[in-house]
Amino acid sequence: MPKFNVSVTVMFRPNILDPQGAAVERALKNQAGLASGVSISNVRVGKVISMTVEGSDERGVQERVKAIADRILANPVMEQYSVEVLEESAK
Amino acid sequence: MPKFNVSVTVMFRPNILDPQGAAVERALKNQAGLASGVSISNVRVGKVISMTVEGSDERGVQERVKAIADRILANPVMEQYSVEVLEESAK
Repeated sequence: MPKFNVSVTVMFRPNILDPQGAAVERALKNQAGLASGVSISNVRVGKVISMTVEGSDERGVQERVKAIADRILANPVMEQYSVEVLEESAK
Repeated sequence: MPKFNVSVTVMFRPNILDPQGAAVERALKNQAGLASGVSISNVRVGKVISMTVEGSDERGVQERVKAIADRILANPVMEQYSVEVLEESAK
């Protein structure tokens, strides 16, 4: 069966406070020179889960991984996720 | 100045043990039916930091964010990161 590189990105929903992102934003403002020349806002911290999935086709893999994300990778009440599936190139 | 949507993905280096990824993999194997029809391996858990950056050009933003990632977002001894910069479309 073909192999796919799958990555699931899980972020808090936009209306949920993200204290970790707020802490990063504060750190950037407090460290002189670190963000010089640019202005940074809207920092959000999420998680990414990468995996190798062997399955018959891309569509089936995508659906299976979505079921997994709903059940054990994300909390759908507070978080949203996106699934990216890339077929592993033949070597 | 133009705005850019930047996301930084931080993962453990491949030779560093990832206990969180191993726990997810175990959970998938223990929950009957959750991974039915596919075979999942090599699960790794990392973090993703998304932000809005205002800067003069894409290249400058990329370099500035890399400096920030080296200093406060990642631990370069144990972690590796990638930076993705997308210009926000004009509305």
